[in-house]
Amino acid sequence: MLNFSILARDGAARAGEFRTGRGLTVETPAFMPVGTQGTVKGVDTGELIAAGTRIVLANTYHLLLRPGPEAIARAGGLARWAGFRNLATLTDSGGFQVMSLGHLRAIDEDGVTFRSHLDGATVRLTPEDAVRVQEAIGADIIMAFDECPRWPPESREALAGSVERTGRWLARCAAARTRADQSLFGIVQGGVDDGLRLRSLELTLGVDLPGYAIGGLAVGEDKDEMYRTLVLVAPRLPADRPRYLMGVGTPEDAILAILAGADLFDCVLPTRTARFGTALTLTGRVNLRHAAARLDTGPLDPSCPCPACRDYSRGFLAHAFRAREMLAPRLVSIHNLTTMHRVIARMREGIRERRAGPVARELLGALHSDRLPEWVARVLDRVGEAA
Amino acid sequence: MLNFSILARDGAARAGEFRTGRGLTVETPAFMPVGTQGTVKGVDTGELIAAGTRIVLANTYHLLLRPGPEAIARAGGLARWAGFRNLATLTDSGGFQVMSLGHLRAIDEDGVTFRSHLDGATVRLTPEDAVRVQEAIGADIIMAFDECPRWPPESREALAGSVERTGRWLARCAAARTRADQSLFGIVQGGVDDGLRLRSLELTLGVDLPGYAIGGLAVGEDKDEMYRTLVLVAPRLPADRPRYLMGVGTPEDAILAILAGADLFDCVLPTRTARFGTALTLTGRVNLRHAAARLDTGPLDPSCPCPACRDYSRGFLAHAFRAREMLAPRLVSIHNLTTMHRVIARMREGIRERRAGPVARELLGALHSDRLPEWVARVLDRVGEAA
Repeated sequence: MLNFSILARDGAARAGEFRTGRGLTVETPAFMPVGTQGTVKGVDTGELIAAGTRIVLANTYHLLLRPGPEAIARAGGLARWAGFRNLATLTDSGGFQVMSLGHLRAIDEDGVTFRSHLDGATVRLTPEDAVRVQEAIGADIIMAFDECPRWPPESREALAGSVERTGRWLARCAAARTRADQSLFGIVQGGVDDGLRLRSLELTLGVDLPGYAIGGLAVGEDKDEMYRTLVLVAPRLPADRPRYLMGVGTPEDAILAILAGADLFDCVLPTRTARFGTALTLTGRVNLRHAAARLDTGPLDPSCPCPACRDYSRGFLAHAFRAREMLAPRLVSIHNLTTMHRVIARMREGIRERRAGPVARELLGALHSDRLPEWVARVLDRVGEAA
Repeated sequence: MLNFSILARDGAARAGEFRTGRGLTVETPAFMPVGTQGTVKGVDTGELIAAGTRIVLANTYHLLLRPGPEAIARAGGLARWAGFRNLATLTDSGGFQVMSLGHLRAIDEDGVTFRSHLDGATVRLTPEDAVRVQEAIGADIIMAFDECPRWPPESREALAGSVERTGRWLARCAAARTRADQSLFGIVQGGVDDGLRLRSLELTLGVDLPGYAIGGLAVGEDKDEMYRTLVLVAPRLPADRPRYLMGVGTPEDAILAILAGADLFDCVLPTRTARFGTALTLTGRVNLRHAAARLDTGPLDPSCPCPACRDYSRGFLAHAFRAREMLAPRLVSIHNLTTMHRVIARMREGIRERRAGPVARELLGALHSDRLPEWVARVLDRVGEAA
């Protein structure tokens, strides 16, 4: 269904591409902006494509509550309904957000019961429901319904229980599928416990799927633990399937995770930080809420082709944030997505040139004025070894 | 300074163009979107130009309070500071907004004293200050500092006093100017009192200026009075100077005012109604907050080339409003501006074809499903006679 192919490798890092059922090609590694309720906040489809986006993520939890999967199905599915013309799409399963946003009532072997954060209504979601809802929404890639434990986990026993249940739920999700044009990805859980990660790998790889995800990372654990786990899991996933590292992240994390062999990423960070006035540039972060920015007549990033950098100065963007003009979060969102995509495109190029490591070092050096934070230096050594 | 030329006439209606000091050509009639604080809310420069915008208005009152004229001057003036690349610019004088937004403390012969709505600071503005501030901001067209009385006027005496003072202030504004690359427009006041309008015309035309505006209309008076006044004033303004009808308005008002001989318009209506969920289309208004819109899979206007109509359905826009996604007000703002510019472009064409009246009737008929509101029919007769 995905026709994933690896075009180049360098160490653990891979450059490839896949083609969705709707005929859209996505080069990997790729970053997926988050269109929670069917929009990447403030950014339209033409701007996403111009920024370099080829695939977007939408949240099943939000779309389930509003407008409901039937409304989306009637409108021709997510891409037609949300105007994601020429963009591939992925939905998460709703599990993660039930736990983080919904007022969770109960988890049992059959599923979860929660209260809607919108109107307090009680909603029940089982693995079969999650597949049915995602089939109605109709994204190109859908995710298995997993139990993503909160960080820190209650106990090793609880974590072990969630790994086993995630395995059983994956089998139910796979069995519940009725559409052949969507690709179901399984999710490896297990926190930062090596033994449980290996067990979850065993359970997840027991179901033959077009792609696999690594969940339960970037949820609060420290960076060394996160990358130790990634370096453990990524190379054990099938080499010929895309590997999706969920909830990541920053330019730094994308670079490092690509070196460790991840192919897909999603995170609200580029757009959420934008709304709070922080611009991501190839030479680091710029806080537009600092008074200093107001007098700066230069662009956010002179090398950036985005409309924020082409038409506006830092000083004007700082004014627009101060004046609460919606143009400000919108333009900086476009800019931050452009930066993420440029970083990843440079890494793709680096892999094709068999220079992934040096390119990563260049990019990370520029992001930190050549003074790498200690954790970045440590992780770079670790993923370098793995590679 | 403006090199205004009339290219075609049909009755009182005129099609022309002017060239600003910065070398930008603006075809008239033209609608000026309002960029209150230096942004047309949510819409960027590339989108303004694609929508058909050639000139934007910014509010001196707002820019005076934040970021201050010196900050804008330091950044190279309004167009460079606000990223209005390839757009002509106009600033109002601040007078109208001091009265409507500021906590006005006192008007005296020398000027006005008010308190900032942002921080309560006391600010003093004289005609000379208004010119100095607008010169620092640096728009292509600047407006005389007038006394725009509230509607309804206190008394005929008060209105007469404001007409005389506006005349004296115009002379002071003209004398205070130091920049030759900006065009100062005078403003005719006088409410809907014919005698006072003629007196204000006499005072205003006493100063030779590159353009003249009609102020104090569309402030609450009824439509018949508004158009009676417009038909009185417009033909008495110099035929070879642009005529700017301030604060107008809707597609209907633009069509009718063009027939009466107006060349320039500005109004927050297209963008403000958009933020409240109302779309302007060539076939009338669409309220996206009505439940019916949610199930509509068609575009706002199938004939419209804007991104909202190209990529999104009414149903999705209705969802995005309900979900408070900023994409919604932004896309509908672009759409509404596109509609205003399309209506005015069609009128320009109609004038060149010497079919301004029939084109106006076609446009108004389509806007109202061929059942013109009574006031529109009455005004159409009146401006038809004038023409």
